Amino acid sequence: MLYHVKMTVNLPADMHPDEAADIKSRETAYSHRLQTEGIIRHIWRITGLYENISIFDCRDNAHLHEVLMGLPLRPHMTIDIMPLSQHPSSIRCGDL
Amino acid sequence: MLYHVKMTVNLPADMHPDEAADIKSRETAYSHRLQTEGIIRHIWRITGLYENISIFDCRDNAHLHEVLMGLPLRPHMTIDIMPLSQHPSSIRCGDL
Amino acid sequence: MLYHVKMTVNLPADMHPDEAADIKSRETAYSHRLQTEGIIRHIWRITGLYENISIFDCRDNAHLHEVLMGLPLRPHMTIDIMPLSQHPSSIRCGDL
Amino acid sequence: MLYHVKMTVNLPADMHPDEAADIKSRETAYSHRLQTEGIIRHIWRITGLYENISIFDCRDNAHLHEVLMGLPLRPHMTIDIMPLSQHPSSIRCGDL
Amino acid sequence: MLYHVKMTVNLPADMHPDEAADIKSRETAYSHRLQTEGIIRHIWRITGLYENISIFDCRDNAHLHEVLMGLPLRPHMTIDIMPLSQHPSSIRCGDL
Amino acid sequence: MLYHVKMTVNLPADMHPDEAADIKSRETAYSHRLQTEGIIRHIWRITGLYENISIFDCRDNAHLHEVLMGLPLRPHMTIDIMPLSQHPSSIRCGDL
Amino acid sequence: MLYHVKMTVNLPADMHPDEAADIKSRETAYSHRLQTEGIIRHIWRITGLYENISIFDCRDNAHLHEVLMGLPLRPHMTIDIMPLSQHPSSIRCGDL
Amino acid sequence: MLYHVKMTVNLPADMHPDEAADIKSRETAYSHRLQTEGIIRHIWRITGLYENISIFDCRDNAHLHEVLMGLPLRPHMTIDIMPLSQHPSSIRCGDL
Amino acid sequence: MLYHVKMTVNLPADMHPDEAADIKSRETAYSHRLQTEGIIRHIWRITGLYENISIFDCRDNAHLHEVLMGLPLRPHMTIDIMPLSQHPSSIRCGDL
Amino acid sequence: MLYHVKMTVNLPADMHPDEAADIKSRETAYSHRLQTEGIIRHIWRITGLYENISIFDCRDNAHLHEVLMGLPLRPHMTIDIMPLSQHPSSIRCGDL
Repeated sequence: MLYHVKMTVNLPADMHPDEAADIKSRETAYSHRLQTEGIIRHIWRITGLYENISIFDCRDNAHLHEVLMGLPLRPHMTIDIMPLSQHPSSIRCGDL
Repeated sequence: MLYHVKMTVNLPADMHPDEAADIKSRETAYSHRLQTEGIIRHIWRITGLYENISIFDCRDNAHLHEVLMGLPLRPHMTIDIMPLSQHPSSIRCGDL
Repeated sequence: MLYHVKMTVNLPADMHPDEAADIKSRETAYSHRLQTEGIIRHIWRITGLYENISIFDCRDNAHLHEVLMGLPLRPHMTIDIMPLSQHPSSIRCGDL
Repeated sequence: MLYHVKMTVNLPADMHPDEAADIKSRETAYSHRLQTEGIIRHIWRITGLYENISIFDCRDNAHLHEVLMGLPLRPHMTIDIMPLSQHPSSIRCGDL
Repeated sequence: MLYHVKMTVNLPADMHPDEAADIKSRETAYSHRLQTEGIIRHIWRITGLYENISIFDCRDNAHLHEVLMGLPLRPHMTIDIMPLSQHPSSIRCGDL
Repeated sequence: MLYHVKMTVNLPADMHPDEAADIKSRETAYSHRLQTEGIIRHIWRITGLYENISIFDCRDNAHLHEVLMGLPLRPHMTIDIMPLSQHPSSIRCGDL
Repeated sequence: MLYHVKMTVNLPADMHPDEAADIKSRETAYSHRLQTEGIIRHIWRITGLYENISIFDCRDNAHLHEVLMGLPLRPHMTIDIMPLSQHPSSIRCGDL
Repeated sequence: MLYHVKMTVNLPADMHPDEAADIKSRETAYSHRLQTEGIIRHIWRITGLYENISIFDCRDNAHLHEVLMGLPLRPHMTIDIMPLSQHPSSIRCGDL
Repeated sequence: MLYHVKMTVNLPADMHPDEAADIKSRETAYSHRLQTEGIIRHIWRITGLYENISIFDCRDNAHLHEVLMGLPLRPHMTIDIMPLSQHPSSIRCGDL
Repeated sequence: MLYHVKMTVNLPADMHPDEAADIKSRETAYSHRLQTEGIIRHIWRITGLYENISIFDCRDNAHLHEVLMGLPLRPHMTIDIMPLSQHPSSIRCGDL
C-alpha cells in the first residue's frame, strides 16, 4: 500500500557540525535499509530545496507510522502524508 | 529529467455527460500513450480525491510544457510542478 | 485501519429541490449501510456547519477510495483525509 | 457533549531529556485518568506526525477548558477545537 | 454557555429583489425572537462589511446547532464558531 | 464606540516564573481598572486557548491605541482589531 | 478620525455595459462628494490593479459604516479596514 | 512617484533596553528628515499594533530602495510595498 | 525602471471560441508592440501553467498602470507586481 | 533551459559581523562567477526587501540543484523555483 510522503528538513542553525554529520550518516543508513527492503520505493530531492518526496510501500498505517518515527532526522522534519491509490489510467499493474 | 506534477481536476458541474465522457476517454488514451513512451513514469490517484500525482520524464522544460498543454483535461485542471533531482541517499541509479 | 475524513458539502444553489432531496436520501441510505457494515465507525456533524467528521475503518487505501467515490454527494463535497494510528496513551485496545 | 480536539506538540529542541521524559510521563497518566473517567472518549495519533485527534466528552465549555488547561504538555501544544453535534445520519444513538 | 459566532453573508448576485427582501425580513424576525429569548446576547455589525459578530447563549452544542440551522439566511452564510469560557480577569460574574 | 479585539498571548518559554507572575498580576489589575471604568465592556476566554476576545468601548481610535499600548502583556501579544457598528437587527439600543 | 480602507472591485463579467457605465458614473459622483466634504482625504489606485487605497476621515465607526454602505459599487467590492492613529514620529500635526 | 509602504516592527525580546532606545531614537530622527524633505508624505500608526502605513514620494524604485535600506530599524522590520497611481476619481491634482 | 509582473489568465469557460481567438490575437499584437518599444523587456511562460512572468521597463508607476490597463486580456487576468532595483552583485550595468 | 528563482535571505540576528561580512563576500564572488559563465542571466533586487529574483540558465534540474546548493548563503535562504518556457508571444528568439 503506497503513501506519498514529503519531508522538509530544518536542522537547527546552532547544531554542532559533528552532531549534524552523525545524524545525517545515520539517516542515510536507515534510508538505504528501507529502500533495500522495498519500504521506500522511490526517493527524490526537490530541486534546490532541503525537501524530498518519497513513495513508501507499507503494510498499513501503523507500519508507516513506525518507520517514519524511526527516521534519525524525524525531530528536525516536518512531514506531509497522502495515501495513494491505483490510478484508473495507470498501465503499470505493479505500481500500487 | 524528472518533474513532480500534481493535477486537480474540476469538471464544470453543468458539463453535458456525453462531453464529460468524451473528454475523459481522450484523456485516458493520451495518458496511455505518454506512459507507453516513458514520458509519464508513474501516475497515482490521491486516495478519495479528484487529484493525481504523476512523475514526468521529459527532455527539458519545453517538452514538459508541450505534453501538459496537450492534456485533453488541461483547461479543467490546476497544476502544480516541482523539478526533481537525484536524492543523495537513493540506491536506484536509474531513478532519475 | 482507521482514517479521519472531513467532508464539506456544497450543493449548487440552483439545484432543483427534488434533485437535492433525492441525492440526500441516497446519501443517508449509503451512510447507514457503511455504518452497519462497520466501515464508518463514527460520524459527527461539526456544530453549525455543513461539514462532518467521520472515522472510516477500511482494509486499505484502495478500499477507502472505493467507498468515498461511492458517496452520492461526492461530486458536491471537498474531502480531507488523514490516516490514523494507535495513540500510545490510548487505553482502548480495540480503538484502532 | 462532544468536542473535536486536535493537538500539535512542539517540545523545545533544547529541553533536557529528563524534563521531557517527566512531562511525557505525567501527560500519559493524565490522559489515562481522563479516558478512564470517560472525558476523553477517543484518542488517535495522526500517522507519522506529532499530532493527535481526541474526542472529548465534557459537561460544558468551562469543563473542557479546565481539562485542557490541566494537560502537562499544554504549554507546548497548539490546540484546535470544534464543537460536535449529532449527525442526522448517525445510527449510533449513544455517539453524542 | 456562550459561543462566539461570526457570520459572513453572501447573497447571490442574481437573487430576485423580492426574494432577497423576504429572506432578510424573515432573518430580522428570527433574530429578534432569539434576542428576546436571550439566546443571542449580543449582535454587532463589523463596520463596513457584510459580516456580524454574535454572542450566543445556548444550553449545549445541539441547541446552538439547531438555532443556527434555523437562520433564514443560513444557506447564504459562512459561519465561524468559537466556544467561550469565563475569563479569569472578568469582573462580571454574570457574563458567562 | 465599540471595537472587537482578539488577543493571543505568547509568553517566552524562558521567562523567569517570578517575572511571568509579576506581569500577569499587573495585567489583571490593569484589566480590572479598564472594566471598572467601562472601557472593557466584555472579556471572554476562547475555550482551551491562550486567547481572549474583548469588547472595548473607547472615545476614538487614539483612545483605543493608548489603552492597548498600556497592557503589561502587550509586548507578548498579537492583537487583531475590528471596529464595530450597530447591527440593524439589534434590539439592545445601548449595545453600541 | 482616520481609517485606512482598501477596496477591491469585482464587477460581474456578465453585467451589461450600460449598467456598468451607470454604476461607475454614480460611484465617481459619490466619491467626488465625499472628497469635497473631506470625508475621503486621499484616494490612490494600486498600480495595475482594480484596487484602491483610501484614507477616510469620519466622526466614528457608525459614520464610516454609513458612507461605505452608500458606495454604489459596494455590492461588488471586498473591503478591508484598519483604524489609524497618530504616529509618534509624524511631524504633521493635522494629519490625524 | 508614490509608494504605499507597510512596516511591521519586531524588536528581538532580548535586545538591551539601551540599544532599543538608541535605535528608536535614530529611527525617529531619520523619519523626521525624510518627512521634512517630502520623501515620507504621510505616516500613520495602525491602531493598537506595532505597524505603520507610510506614503513615500520617491524619484524611482532605486530611490525608494535606498531610503528604506537606510532605516535604522530596517533589520527588525518586515516591509510590504505597493506602487501607487493617480485614481481617476481623485479631485486632488497634487496627490500623486 | 523595472517591474516584475506575474499574470495569471482565466478565460471564462463559456466564452465563445471566436471571442477567445479575437482577444488572444489582440493580446499578441499588443505584446509585440510593447516588446518592440522596449517596454516589455522579457516575457516567459511558467512551464505548464496559464501564467507568465514579464519584466516591464516603464518611466514610472503611471506609465506601468497605463500599459497594463491596455492589455486586451486585462479583465481576465490577476496581476501581481513587484518594483525591481539594481542588485549589488549584478555585473550587467544595463540590466536596470 | 531557464528557471525563475526567488531567494529570501534571513541572516541570524546573532551572527557575528565578521562572519556575516565573510559569507556575503563569498556570495558576491560566487554570483559574479555564475553570471560570467552565463548561468545566472539576470539578477534583480526586489525593491526595499532582502529578496532577489534571478533567472538561471542551466543544462538540467541536476545542474540547477548543484549551483543552488553551492551558494554560500544557501543555509540562510528560502528558495522558490519555477521552470520557465518560451512564451508564444515573445519576439526574442534567444530568450530561452
